[in-house]
Order: sequence, then structure tokens, then C-alpha cells
Amino acid sequence: MQTTLNMLKTHPGQTWTDPERLAGAIAELYSCAQACTTCADACLGEKEVQPLVACIRTNLDCADICLATGAMLSRVTSSPTELLRSMLGACAKACNTCAAECSKHSSMHEHCRVCADVCRRCEKSCRDLLG
Amino acid sequence: MQTTLNMLKTHPGQTWTDPERLAGAIAELYSCAQACTTCADACLGEKEVQPLVACIRTNLDCADICLATGAMLSRVTSSPTELLRSMLGACAKACNTCAAECSKHSSMHEHCRVCADVCRRCEKSCRDLLG
Amino acid sequence: MQTTLNMLKTHPGQTWTDPERLAGAIAELYSCAQACTTCADACLGEKEVQPLVACIRTNLDCADICLATGAMLSRVTSSPTELLRSMLGACAKACNTCAAECSKHSSMHEHCRVCADVCRRCEKSCRDLLG
Amino acid sequence: MQTTLNMLKTHPGQTWTDPERLAGAIAELYSCAQACTTCADACLGEKEVQPLVACIRTNLDCADICLATGAMLSRVTSSPTELLRSMLGACAKACNTCAAECSKHSSMHEHCRVCADVCRRCEKSCRDLLG
Repeated sequence: MQTTLNMLKTHPGQTWTDPERLAGAIAELYSCAQACTTCADACLGEKEVQPLVACIRTNLDCADICLATGAMLSRVTSSPTELLRSMLGACAKACNTCAAECSKHSSMHEHCRVCADVCRRCEKSCRDLLG
Repeated sequence: MQTTLNMLKTHPGQTWTDPERLAGAIAELYSCAQACTTCADACLGEKEVQPLVACIRTNLDCADICLATGAMLSRVTSSPTELLRSMLGACAKACNTCAAECSKHSSMHEHCRVCADVCRRCEKSCRDLLG
Repeated sequence: MQTTLNMLKTHPGQTWTDPERLAGAIAELYSCAQACTTCADACLGEKEVQPLVACIRTNLDCADICLATGAMLSRVTSSPTELLRSMLGACAKACNTCAAECSKHSSMHEHCRVCADVCRRCEKSCRDLLG
Repeated sequence: MQTTLNMLKTHPGQTWTDPERLAGAIAELYSCAQACTTCADACLGEKEVQPLVACIRTNLDCADICLATGAMLSRVTSSPTELLRSMLGACAKACNTCAAECSKHSSMHEHCRVCADVCRRCEKSCRDLLG
């Protein structure tokens, strides 16, 4: 997050919200994309994959949406346009869906518990920015 | 598009809408992502880049969102959930925004004219799926 | 591919190779990324997922690498630098690996057969550009 | 990085190298992708964009390659295959190229200095994994 904050602070444009807050959200988005990618792979590595198929698909959707949203927010000076708000809304929904799905498997699979936590934090960041 | 259609038709799951229609939309999404990536690069190659800065940023946003949406639709059996509808809505908005921005430069730059056309087709595909 | 070709031809820069050839390769890369994304999802939809786990992982790797390579080639005027050659080499390898893995399941799963074909065409395109 | 490490440690498979080292590399890759995305946007926000065109293009290439490599490494149990080694090699090259290009503008643009540092750290991580 420190690197992201340094990048935002040295950007010639003005961020549309507090740079710390924006850097925090961006960090959560990339972290969530990473966690979901590993969670999908961890699910594929379990002895019983079948019960985790919905989880894998949701992980993959969530990873893709988080990366696209993270890249949009990284293009700093884009103001909080209607488009950015739509994406933040879709992303919050993706994280919420993924957290709910992962939570179903949290007692069995620790990686699903960790991933659900990251998704919830990321959802919160998106909603805070929509605020 | 033929390859995409073949993939959808050999998928063990049932597509949630007509496969031809779905394959068409997926093809538009990847094509739009590709066109926007080249349009951003073409803008960077123009003698006067400054007036095209907003166009480049919009192109990059549109490419990212189209790819994420295209990947979601490619995971065929995901039903038209609220999440998918949110993404299709955000994507239609991205394409609309990019088409509008590219159109401003269409008389000067042929690549912006071609790109605006692709964006409009892609927006239409997303809206058609939203019904 | 026609749209890609139109984009390349209206780019202010000179393509480093014949535009038809470049447009063809770009089209194969995006098509391969799309097919691999659907093939992974189709594998997840099969009654027996376990024997397809390696195939799903290879599909996901191949999709990611094809998209990155497709985006690089879409930034037209980048000359065939050492970096571009490295990526084309890695991408050819990814497609080759994925085609080999999908081929193992082609007799059982038609989507793997279609996907293996796309991967082989894409590998050929990458190698032709390296040629 | 802590989240990534937790994900790797709760993965049912064995990582092919020390989890701390792998988590560190994955964190650098996503961080580098993020920094390059913001650096491209920061360059677009400068008063004189023309001298930064090569930097923007290199940033975009580097971001795409880092994300693809980061996703591959996040699929933990993939052994350090020839394909993974190819991608790590291409990625190290991308980071090296981007660091060199950003360094040319470091005295003028602080974001290029920060980005060059991230790229160098990421290049080092990739080379360390290549061993």
C-alpha cells in the first residue's frame, strides 16, 4: 500500500478523494484478486472438488472484476464518474457474492475462510468509496 | 465467433440464453477490448497527444471492463445473476462513454471512428443481453 | 479479425510486420483466451472434475498469457523487441502445453477437442511471428 | 503480503519453493502492475506527454505481463515448469525494460522514479525465483 500511496502522491493530478483512502481501496482490490486466484486453485487441489465448483467460478469472476476495478481506480484522476460508480457497485456485489460462497466452506477449508475475509474487506472499501 | 459458438455448444451446461446470441456478445466484448487497446496506442502515436488524453484513458477503462465482462460471460453456466447484470450494465456504460469520447475525434482520426463503431456494437450487445 | 485489421490500418504508426499477419495473430490470441476460459468452465461442469484439474489450471494459465500477449501485439508500433519475442515464446509454450493437456481429454470431452485446436492455431501464429 | 502468505499456507498443495519467498514475489508482481498502471496515467497527466509516450507503452506492457505472471504464481501448486520459467524470464525482461525507461524521466517526474524502483524490485523477485 505504501508504494501505491507514493504513486498517487506523485501523480500530477489531484485524486478525487483522500489519497490514503484511495490507496487503501486499490490495495484491497489487488489483494482480493490475488486471494481469489489462489482460492480457486486451492479448491481445485482439494480431494473433493465437486462441492467447490460454484466457489471456483465465483472466485474467478471476483478476481476479474477486482482487477478491472483496481486498474480503473489506479488511473487516478478519473473523477468519480457514473461509470466508476457502476464498477464499484458491481465489484462490491462480486466481493459480497464471493464472501458468501467462500463462507459456506470456511469450516472445512481454511483458504476459503481467509478468502472470505479479504472479500469482505474489499467489499467494504468499495462501498466506502461509493459512500 | 464460430470458435466461441463451438465452445458454448460443447459445454456440458445449458447456456442461460440462446448460444448464438451469447457467442455474438462474447465476440463483441473481446473485439471491443482489442480495438480499445489499439485505439489507445494509436492515440499515443498521433502528433498531438494532449487532445487525446481523455480518449486514451477511456479506451483503457473500456478495454479492462470488456475483458472482465467477456470472461464472466465465457463462464457459460453462470445464470444471469444480479452480479452479471451489474457487470453488463457497467460494461454498456463503459462502451457508451468510450464511443462518445472517440466520436469527438472521428473526423480527425480514423482509428477513433472505427473504435467508436465497435464500442457502439458492444454496448448494444450488452443491452440486448440485459433484455 | 476485420475490425482488428481496420484498427491496425488506421494506426498512425507502421506495423513491424504485414498488417494482415499481425491482425490474424491478434485475433487468434483473443480467441484462444476466450476458448480457454470457456474450456475451464466446461471442465468444471463435467460430472467428474478431478481428472480435469490439470486441464483447468493449464486453461487458466493459457488464457492469462494469451491476453497479455494479445494486448502487447495490439500496441502496434512496438517493434519486435527482445521483450516481445520473449512473450511470444512463452505464449507459444503455453498454447502448446494447453493443447497437449486438452488433447488427453478430447475423446471424452468435445470442448477439449475444440480448445486444443484453437491452442494449436494460436501456437502456430506466435511461432510464425517469431519466425 | 500477509494475506497472500496466509492463502499459500492454507492451500492443500505444497508450494514448489519457500512460501515466504513465493508470497513476496507475488506481492511484488501485483504491486508492480498497479504502479505501472498509475505511472502510465501520471505520464498522461503531465503537461508534456509526447516525451513520455514510450514510457506509457512500456508501463502498459509491464502491467499486463506482471498480472499474468502474478496469476500463474498464485496457482500455487504449478511446479516450476518450463512454461513458468519462460514467463518469469519474460516478466523480468519487462520489468527491466520499464525500469530503464522510467529512469530516463526520474529526475523530472517523481512517479517515474517510484515506478522504476518497484520495477527493479519486481525484476529481482522474478530472477530470484528463476534461481
